[in-house]
Amino acid sequence: MPVELFAGQAGFAEALDALINDKRETSEDVNTIVADILRDVRARGDDAVIEYTCRFDKLDLTPQTMRIPAADIQAAYEQTETELLEALELAAERIREYHGRQVPEGYDYTDDAGVRLGSRWRAVQAAGLYVPGGTAAYPSSVLMNVIPAKVAGVERLVMCVPAPNGVLNPLVLAAAKVGGADEIYRIGGAQAVAAMAYGTQTIAPVDKIVGPGNAFVAAAKRQVFGTVGIDSIAGPSEILVVADADNDPAWIAADLLSQAEHDTASQSILITDSADFARAVGEAVEGHLQTLARAEIARQSWNDHGALIVVDSIDDAVPLIDRVAPEHLELAVADPDALAERITNAGAIFLGRYTPEAVGDYVGGPNHVLPTARSARFSSGLGVIDFMKRTSLLGCTPDALAAIGPAAVKLAEVEGLGAHGLSVALRMNVPRGQG
Amino acid sequence: MPVELFAGQAGFAEALDALINDKRETSEDVNTIVADILRDVRARGDDAVIEYTCRFDKLDLTPQTMRIPAADIQAAYEQTETELLEALELAAERIREYHGRQVPEGYDYTDDAGVRLGSRWRAVQAAGLYVPGGTAAYPSSVLMNVIPAKVAGVERLVMCVPAPNGVLNPLVLAAAKVGGADEIYRIGGAQAVAAMAYGTQTIAPVDKIVGPGNAFVAAAKRQVFGTVGIDSIAGPSEILVVADADNDPAWIAADLLSQAEHDTASQSILITDSADFARAVGEAVEGHLQTLARAEIARQSWNDHGALIVVDSIDDAVPLIDRVAPEHLELAVADPDALAERITNAGAIFLGRYTPEAVGDYVGGPNHVLPTARSARFSSGLGVIDFMKRTSLLGCTPDALAAIGPAAVKLAEVEGLGAHGLSVALRMNVPRGQG
Repeated sequence: MPVELFAGQAGFAEALDALINDKRETSEDVNTIVADILRDVRARGDDAVIEYTCRFDKLDLTPQTMRIPAADIQAAYEQTETELLEALELAAERIREYHGRQVPEGYDYTDDAGVRLGSRWRAVQAAGLYVPGGTAAYPSSVLMNVIPAKVAGVERLVMCVPAPNGVLNPLVLAAAKVGGADEIYRIGGAQAVAAMAYGTQTIAPVDKIVGPGNAFVAAAKRQVFGTVGIDSIAGPSEILVVADADNDPAWIAADLLSQAEHDTASQSILITDSADFARAVGEAVEGHLQTLARAEIARQSWNDHGALIVVDSIDDAVPLIDRVAPEHLELAVADPDALAERITNAGAIFLGRYTPEAVGDYVGGPNHVLPTARSARFSSGLGVIDFMKRTSLLGCTPDALAAIGPAAVKLAEVEGLGAHGLSVALRMNVPRGQG
Repeated sequence: MPVELFAGQAGFAEALDALINDKRETSEDVNTIVADILRDVRARGDDAVIEYTCRFDKLDLTPQTMRIPAADIQAAYEQTETELLEALELAAERIREYHGRQVPEGYDYTDDAGVRLGSRWRAVQAAGLYVPGGTAAYPSSVLMNVIPAKVAGVERLVMCVPAPNGVLNPLVLAAAKVGGADEIYRIGGAQAVAAMAYGTQTIAPVDKIVGPGNAFVAAAKRQVFGTVGIDSIAGPSEILVVADADNDPAWIAADLLSQAEHDTASQSILITDSADFARAVGEAVEGHLQTLARAEIARQSWNDHGALIVVDSIDDAVPLIDRVAPEHLELAVADPDALAERITNAGAIFLGRYTPEAVGDYVGGPNHVLPTARSARFSSGLGVIDFMKRTSLLGCTPDALAAIGPAAVKLAEVEGLGAHGLSVALRMNVPRGQG
């Protein structure tokens, strides 16, 4: 059974703490195995990747067959049923439109001292996307990762997806084509991460690696961090739904279950101002669980990590939400905008009674790769700037250096950095107007 | 002696690879010690922090004396000599002006389907800045870390600086006052990082921790990552200077030494199109080393990691620079703008013959916390967005959901996520115009 908490009662703060600090992930220690694989791929390149693929994926590859030919990708795309292709295209178009507005602007100005100052954003030159194989091979995730990279201007977007026993989900290829991936390799696991980070004879290295994966992939990403950039390592999914009694309990129950069905470690929390409504939602959850295909997973998640929290008034939800800092926050209330304005910490906010979180997973437009495990306090969902980097520009004329140089010399002096001061002072000791 | 490389010669590519992959850092393995300290501070709070401070810093504290009183900070500020205070104020003003332009804009629009879409940036609620004690206590670094946080709108900026034997650099306090730090504690090491990440009875926890530190501090930051956000872990400093023969070799030599004097692990590289000029710069380096206070450190850095690279023409420098992806790039050439435009990977670019890198360390305006160890390929210097996070907003009316909902249901179906589809479908099965 999910936890039931009443905000007025004794011990509420402690119970809430326990709920949000609830360590739901089981961390397998795969670091040593992964370190060996990375070292091997770094040293032997293609040969090592091919050996691990044979061992783990039961798939025989050669350097020539690692990459999926354009014709195969085209065929997967063409064989996708029309209605589904249209759904993918609609999603892609909406994601592209939303992310297009995220492209950051630089600036370039000369200030009163005559100093030229600039800030310039450029795309990373090459990015790699890891896509899990098997049941977690979600075409929607391909779109959510590829499109921000292409909007950023990444010229070379490499995708790696394992094909255990040679089997690939054709929808993943179709989504890759819709999104605009440039190279796709049928390799997975730590060996794929290593291939993208260090490069092999066949696969040129990338600068940044993103995308979800199992414990081996997550450990590999952590270990190659520094050699390449990585995105955040996603934890189990979470939703916090704030709903008053004017909602249909069946709708809210479905929303809670849409996270619970992802993983037994997912967490779904309802905050409401009505104990009766909380009870009705709990009953509706039980009702839905009778028919859902993934009921077993959802039930375990709901029983182990779910919570129904009753507050005196919806206003009282605000500090609780900021403490939870949920990945997904649904505001099924009469004035969701006013409530949203008061929230600081949330990965994504879904406004009003007709915006189930799931619509945002697919076709809303915003990214569905979002900060988990309370990290919405300090981090953001995946976006265009994750595939860009900023360079600052500074330019002095002799006069500008004469204006600001003495302060630099003074500060270098108190910091004891003689060559710093010297490099500025030498240039100030020339007749003005030179240079 | 620094390496001398000629771009035309056999083995150049391999020698360049060796140079840029040169592992300059010695990594002390302090993870176990740090993990124990973190666990202890998390469990025992103030008591643990006070014990470690007594042991490592030879300083007796109580919960009441951990925090530095406002009067002491004011006194440090007032006792700073006027010329130095003016230099700090000038630097702060210029850093504030430059970073003020970095505040990202959100957006909020309703598209043709009637879907409300938004992106909202908010400051993290509380940030912590670690400031090293002793010789590396640089007031300029305090400004470079505090000001972007305050420009972002961080309401509570906590600073921790160790005071070994009770000794503190008053300039660090003066800089903290100029920059606008809100709380300052005289604690350091892994115990300070733990106090900021987990909180103690006296120190409320923060959401993000930034700032440089020794191996213990770096390991502590890595280990608390997830509980809080962290900035990147900085490696040894680097400079790449591109200079033609029309420069004064003494100026360029001083620029190379301004990085070399930071640390024996720093790296300074010159790329020039003149072998004669390279030789002259090498001689000028030796000349400066006769007089510099930190000559011993600078000499070791220059001999072990320095390089003079001669190319046929400055154009040939472009691909080399992008491979090196330097933290600092100085373009001492006739048309630095044209050259800068062609460079993708650099943390900061210094334009022209009158812009020594050191002016940017103090008073230029851009941040001096920059990506090292080739990470400029995928990451940026410290900025305002490092203290902010983005929340996406999505809102559907019944009509908007009717327009885009079917595609979401279709995609949920092929991904096998029944509750996802259900949560959307339930809301589409209502008479239009409701809600």
